[in-house]
Amino acid sequence: MRFDEAYSGNVFIKSHPSYEESSVVLYGMPMDWTVSYRPGSRFGPTRIREVSIGLEEYSAYLDRELEEVKYFDAGDIPLPFGNAQRSIDMIEDYIDQVLGDGKIPFGMGGEHLVSWPVMKAIAKKYPDLGIIHMDAHTDLREEYEGEPLSHSTPIRKIAEHIGPENVYSFGIRSGMKEEFQWAKENGMHISKFEVLEPLKEILPTLAGRPVYVTIDIDVLDPAHAPGTGTVDCGGITSKELLASIHAIAHSDINVVGADLVEVAPIYDNSEQTANTASKLIREMLLGWVK
Amino acid sequence: MRFDEAYSGNVFIKSHPSYEESSVVLYGMPMDWTVSYRPGSRFGPTRIREVSIGLEEYSAYLDRELEEVKYFDAGDIPLPFGNAQRSIDMIEDYIDQVLGDGKIPFGMGGEHLVSWPVMKAIAKKYPDLGIIHMDAHTDLREEYEGEPLSHSTPIRKIAEHIGPENVYSFGIRSGMKEEFQWAKENGMHISKFEVLEPLKEILPTLAGRPVYVTIDIDVLDPAHAPGTGTVDCGGITSKELLASIHAIAHSDINVVGADLVEVAPIYDNSEQTANTASKLIREMLLGWVK
Amino acid sequence: MRFDEAYSGNVFIKSHPSYEESSVVLYGMPMDWTVSYRPGSRFGPTRIREVSIGLEEYSAYLDRELEEVKYFDAGDIPLPFGNAQRSIDMIEDYIDQVLGDGKIPFGMGGEHLVSWPVMKAIAKKYPDLGIIHMDAHTDLREEYEGEPLSHSTPIRKIAEHIGPENVYSFGIRSGMKEEFQWAKENGMHISKFEVLEPLKEILPTLAGRPVYVTIDIDVLDPAHAPGTGTVDCGGITSKELLASIHAIAHSDINVVGADLVEVAPIYDNSEQTANTASKLIREMLLGWVK
Amino acid sequence: MRFDEAYSGNVFIKSHPSYEESSVVLYGMPMDWTVSYRPGSRFGPTRIREVSIGLEEYSAYLDRELEEVKYFDAGDIPLPFGNAQRSIDMIEDYIDQVLGDGKIPFGMGGEHLVSWPVMKAIAKKYPDLGIIHMDAHTDLREEYEGEPLSHSTPIRKIAEHIGPENVYSFGIRSGMKEEFQWAKENGMHISKFEVLEPLKEILPTLAGRPVYVTIDIDVLDPAHAPGTGTVDCGGITSKELLASIHAIAHSDINVVGADLVEVAPIYDNSEQTANTASKLIREMLLGWVK
Amino acid sequence: MRFDEAYSGNVFIKSHPSYEESSVVLYGMPMDWTVSYRPGSRFGPTRIREVSIGLEEYSAYLDRELEEVKYFDAGDIPLPFGNAQRSIDMIEDYIDQVLGDGKIPFGMGGEHLVSWPVMKAIAKKYPDLGIIHMDAHTDLREEYEGEPLSHSTPIRKIAEHIGPENVYSFGIRSGMKEEFQWAKENGMHISKFEVLEPLKEILPTLAGRPVYVTIDIDVLDPAHAPGTGTVDCGGITSKELLASIHAIAHSDINVVGADLVEVAPIYDNSEQTANTASKLIREMLLGWVK
Amino acid sequence: MRFDEAYSGNVFIKSHPSYEESSVVLYGMPMDWTVSYRPGSRFGPTRIREVSIGLEEYSAYLDRELEEVKYFDAGDIPLPFGNAQRSIDMIEDYIDQVLGDGKIPFGMGGEHLVSWPVMKAIAKKYPDLGIIHMDAHTDLREEYEGEPLSHSTPIRKIAEHIGPENVYSFGIRSGMKEEFQWAKENGMHISKFEVLEPLKEILPTLAGRPVYVTIDIDVLDPAHAPGTGTVDCGGITSKELLASIHAIAHSDINVVGADLVEVAPIYDNSEQTANTASKLIREMLLGWVK
Repeated sequence: MRFDEAYSGNVFIKSHPSYEESSVVLYGMPMDWTVSYRPGSRFGPTRIREVSIGLEEYSAYLDRELEEVKYFDAGDIPLPFGNAQRSIDMIEDYIDQVLGDGKIPFGMGGEHLVSWPVMKAIAKKYPDLGIIHMDAHTDLREEYEGEPLSHSTPIRKIAEHIGPENVYSFGIRSGMKEEFQWAKENGMHISKFEVLEPLKEILPTLAGRPVYVTIDIDVLDPAHAPGTGTVDCGGITSKELLASIHAIAHSDINVVGADLVEVAPIYDNSEQTANTASKLIREMLLGWVK
Repeated sequence: MRFDEAYSGNVFIKSHPSYEESSVVLYGMPMDWTVSYRPGSRFGPTRIREVSIGLEEYSAYLDRELEEVKYFDAGDIPLPFGNAQRSIDMIEDYIDQVLGDGKIPFGMGGEHLVSWPVMKAIAKKYPDLGIIHMDAHTDLREEYEGEPLSHSTPIRKIAEHIGPENVYSFGIRSGMKEEFQWAKENGMHISKFEVLEPLKEILPTLAGRPVYVTIDIDVLDPAHAPGTGTVDCGGITSKELLASIHAIAHSDINVVGADLVEVAPIYDNSEQTANTASKLIREMLLGWVK
Repeated sequence: MRFDEAYSGNVFIKSHPSYEESSVVLYGMPMDWTVSYRPGSRFGPTRIREVSIGLEEYSAYLDRELEEVKYFDAGDIPLPFGNAQRSIDMIEDYIDQVLGDGKIPFGMGGEHLVSWPVMKAIAKKYPDLGIIHMDAHTDLREEYEGEPLSHSTPIRKIAEHIGPENVYSFGIRSGMKEEFQWAKENGMHISKFEVLEPLKEILPTLAGRPVYVTIDIDVLDPAHAPGTGTVDCGGITSKELLASIHAIAHSDINVVGADLVEVAPIYDNSEQTANTASKLIREMLLGWVK
Repeated sequence: MRFDEAYSGNVFIKSHPSYEESSVVLYGMPMDWTVSYRPGSRFGPTRIREVSIGLEEYSAYLDRELEEVKYFDAGDIPLPFGNAQRSIDMIEDYIDQVLGDGKIPFGMGGEHLVSWPVMKAIAKKYPDLGIIHMDAHTDLREEYEGEPLSHSTPIRKIAEHIGPENVYSFGIRSGMKEEFQWAKENGMHISKFEVLEPLKEILPTLAGRPVYVTIDIDVLDPAHAPGTGTVDCGGITSKELLASIHAIAHSDINVVGADLVEVAPIYDNSEQTANTASKLIREMLLGWVK
Repeated sequence: MRFDEAYSGNVFIKSHPSYEESSVVLYGMPMDWTVSYRPGSRFGPTRIREVSIGLEEYSAYLDRELEEVKYFDAGDIPLPFGNAQRSIDMIEDYIDQVLGDGKIPFGMGGEHLVSWPVMKAIAKKYPDLGIIHMDAHTDLREEYEGEPLSHSTPIRKIAEHIGPENVYSFGIRSGMKEEFQWAKENGMHISKFEVLEPLKEILPTLAGRPVYVTIDIDVLDPAHAPGTGTVDCGGITSKELLASIHAIAHSDINVVGADLVEVAPIYDNSEQTANTASKLIREMLLGWVK
Repeated sequence: MRFDEAYSGNVFIKSHPSYEESSVVLYGMPMDWTVSYRPGSRFGPTRIREVSIGLEEYSAYLDRELEEVKYFDAGDIPLPFGNAQRSIDMIEDYIDQVLGDGKIPFGMGGEHLVSWPVMKAIAKKYPDLGIIHMDAHTDLREEYEGEPLSHSTPIRKIAEHIGPENVYSFGIRSGMKEEFQWAKENGMHISKFEVLEPLKEILPTLAGRPVYVTIDIDVLDPAHAPGTGTVDCGGITSKELLASIHAIAHSDINVVGADLVEVAPIYDNSEQTANTASKLIREMLLGWVK
């Protein structure tokens, strides 16, 4: 019994107690106010942490244990409910600070729009940044029913910001005709339906480059991730997503930041989605942080 | 079989086909982006309409049938996801038009903030407007963690707009100390915990006045309305809420508009909350529209 | 805001407003009274329409948009609860009218027995009709515990009606020994367990023929369709079912009608089944209606 | 370990092993095909039995234990899915046999229509039969959308069969205007909204008479019975229903049969409805069988 | 943003950061291995903390704010899964330490057996201890199917330990005949069915005495607490339980420890039970800690 | 109607009425008290039996019907809640008796620890016993947080008992580093991630030997078995598990006992896990009992 310090509560399993000594910062971005379909991903980070207690600390895939990576779970960024612009600004400031302290940011969403300010902040530090994007949806809209700040727009924003040729999307199975056309006309890579095989082809071309990886949990088939805002059948299996994470781990790219977004626990009574997300984060930490 | 006209789809049971001939307009306000706890009330209006098919058209309480009231279900107002200010402006414009056409607005939420632009629009038409408010929460905050547009603020806004002495809250069991103090210091009526008995005392004092009635479904105990954003025990029963609606029906006030908000279907697998809401709306229509 | 016409309510996304101008009629058959296990598919069509709002209007698989196909969502046929014979007669009359008006019928169940009167009506118009049937179950019983009108019998009925050699079943993994024997002895085609590969072999043999396609959602593994009456493991993935729909789209058969049945929303809190069904219907419309 | 006899499986707790030695027969009527709203009560009896293992065998209300009453759980009557007429005939035959053997029938539904053939059979044996009916709904329709065999009709049928003046309904809060009028014009007793107080007034007038008691679980408020087909707010509490059962226990009427119907487990994840039903049946057995 | 200290994570709202400066220690006892019916209360404390974020910090009942009471959330005691004896020993040691440090223990269960070692430890410090027990069940068994360590036994154990005349049970509606007899023969107080009225009568007789209050959430009707192991209808409302807590707050007894047990979140998708529990704990802290 | 014998209740479909005449005994081991994560598997056997009514009696995979195998469903062993040691002893005694009577034991869990006493009993009868183990987890711990009786330990116990070289694990994707090392150093076979292919390689080496097969349902991906205690993504499909069962059926090993454990129904509202389990048991019976 330890009464000499505050109960550390619900943190991701094996989180390191010291921010200074950690090389990775794990944080939640509990925002879901611009989603056009089902909200609820604000509770994703909390539930992922809660169920992480059921995880093994060792990866049988990577033969590595969590204590070999120093990461600090900094909790959720306290975002202002219903104010998209202020939320985005706060996230960018937050990431600026994390990067300024020389840490690698690992984020948990929240809706996918949260990735935009993170990627923007990282692009300031890494001018030759590449983006690997796994998702069911293109997320290449300019606006959604008049709103430029929408969960349908983050990839368009970063593509315009760093150049579409530096953005690689995988597993895409839904979008507007115009989105696919824009990607094609602007030299952005989109792999439809599949992730692992096209990723293996792309990875060597990114060798040595700094890369941010953003994963929307709905790249998984709804069978494997029912707890998300937009369930879209025809997706990949969790086995394939794990293999894709491991392919990145075994590649020569330099992962300078990553996120996993759109876990919405309320739509999944079995909590398999949150449990899967916590295992994916374990593999991302063990595989991508050298 | 009628193929000669568009399938009228999912409308509230017995909705009249003509807007012009109707005296009441029933509409949904599918907004939930400023809520500080659990979102999901955007789907309230759709589900309330869907389950209304299970309703009897006759009220054994009021001995009246739905066909005796002409109301037009106008569907949901297409609000911009994640943009609170624009949503509020659109609702106010919408209500201006409904009132301009001489119709009585009956709204379905959505979060409670949607009531603010409705009440504001109605106050333009009825300078001596009174507000009857049934809720678990005071909703008297000036802002929520920096945001003035929050589901915690609508009653404060209307109270400041028309004068706190014209606002009567019932069933309140949660709020900040400062909210209760503000109400007390400014002459606003708050009945804590109870609805029916204090309402019966207040109603005669409002005789002849135009009154807007706004009901947050969480005035009910969670046992009676588990499907809402903030479940707060210690509430009233559905029997008491029905009796309160009937007390208004039997009073001499002039109901010039009404709403029922905060039904969030995803938290209630039995769908009792949506079913209850549809019955409450039936009783409101039958009891309050002469 | 459009107050000049009735709220069109809960219709399948992009449904055309005019029956006359449409080439396809989409309709629900909310019947589930003869099921031997779990009822609830009566609510399938309503929920499929409701969630269709989350669909993209463009298919990244077929490079086609919904507005390129004119279909009219005619709502649900109002079937008499608990009366199987009368329900079947009403459905047959309904389809007779749809066909008489030169429209292609696309149905949503409801239990699988509803396909029987549809196929019977279509066989009147197309004497050389072929049937493609995707299902976990043979549905070849003569009766179920004494009842000839049962969800276990529709394929037997149509096979006896148009000749077993014109019926092709795929994905079958459950049935009585006698059912498989009857098929074998009578020249009816059954592909056990698999759909895509055997379908690709059969399609060329049906080139140019009018074909009705009936899909029981339980051909999918329960992982991909938990919301159905009889969950039977060992099924195909949604990716495979999509590919099978596309194989038909790319074949030379003439789809003269189709249905998707047995979606029972209550057994699936994530609503992935209804969402999947709505995407399947989009692909069926885009791929099968030229 | 007893391997010398068949595993007795899922029977209501403390069921007596011998039919001959029992004075009460407990049976399920797993029929739900005529319901106009949500089906699923076919699984009511099975689930009630299953959860009965959580019951205490002693009633603190009646100071009596289950072993003081000999009842035989005969399982479910194997009704033909989707065939209302044949189901009703089978139930009547079944009850004829139970009554012929001198046993008291205690039934578990299933939809409310199952009570009709039971009451009809009992009326043959007891010409001066009275009916006590607790329900949210009148169930006095002649037919439902053209179907005379509907869950909305059983009380009308028995009222016409034994005379409306012998039927006493309690707790009624929903019905058509015509149903209430028919009751009024024909001398049938209806207590709206309340059960306990009006029941206490009626019971003395029935002293010494044979009475069948039929309880629709939806007489309870949905808060107390979310697991039913038609959830209708404004109902009584389980405390009040228990007290009503005890009022009958302490009266001088002769309970010659009883049922509890409309438990539909799928709509109640907490299983409180099935647990409540099993406790109600315990109290009915302990209180009504001398 | 505070990166200078470990994320304090999921603690009960407004928990004080210092153990030393706090007068109350709040702790979880995540044990559910001896329950005879439905397990799952091990997750009660975690979920209660998680949802406490939705609580107001001010009580409108007691006109007091949480910051007026200093309590330290010490997290869950790490109990050994499946070992009842060792768990009980660990809890007793834990409470000894809390009491030795001069703190008041407030526990969250877990199953009711966890209260036994707490009460035993407290009785060492307060020889004239009284127990107030609110529950649906007597919990007075000597053993359950051969096991003396069972969730059915804690009140019997403490009653034998401090004398049955010092134990007062309220709201009891289920138990074995022998349990009620034992209580009667040994001078232990049991109020059947009701809590508030008998409690008001008993409280003056306990004036000035140290009292431990143990509340099993199932004293509430399942309508108000569906998320518990044993749902037993006929219970009290949350309004009545709040009033009972307030009656103790306004009495002259000295609450020297308390617990709230048997919250099992998995059985309640609306999470009303955990939300209710967190509000009850707020009221217990504000009302019972002077 | 058969009133001449006790209602046989909820037994696995087509269970033979006579223990003596049966060659297989099917029994439940409703224990879940040592699980470290989510409990609830105590209800697995009951629910598997209940849903078995939805099974076909014929296997289209094996072309065999259930009546060709004589098995007796003996119900659940009445294990003492919360007492792991006594439970294990009772199970061992039970299996001793089953084996003594010359029957083959087929068990349904319950947590995985229940397999330990079964395997121990069988090893007494078959000195050259081999174990085939399908699972997501190694289950090779010596103890869990101090407890040697834990659901994480059964394979370690049997491996030490009969020699690690006789134990073959398949599908393993989680465990501690030490567990994998122990297996490697001691000659125990572990196939990581996959089941079918490595199993096909191993089976010939076991030809002619007596083998016990223990299947933890979580070897399936959570998509296929959400209703289990520890959901661990990256697993196999139900199609693959069925094929693995059939590979054993077509091999030359002698299955002398088997179990299927860890079905926890409460986490799966669709009940696909229990339905899948009942189908797996059908295939195990039809394929493994000659």
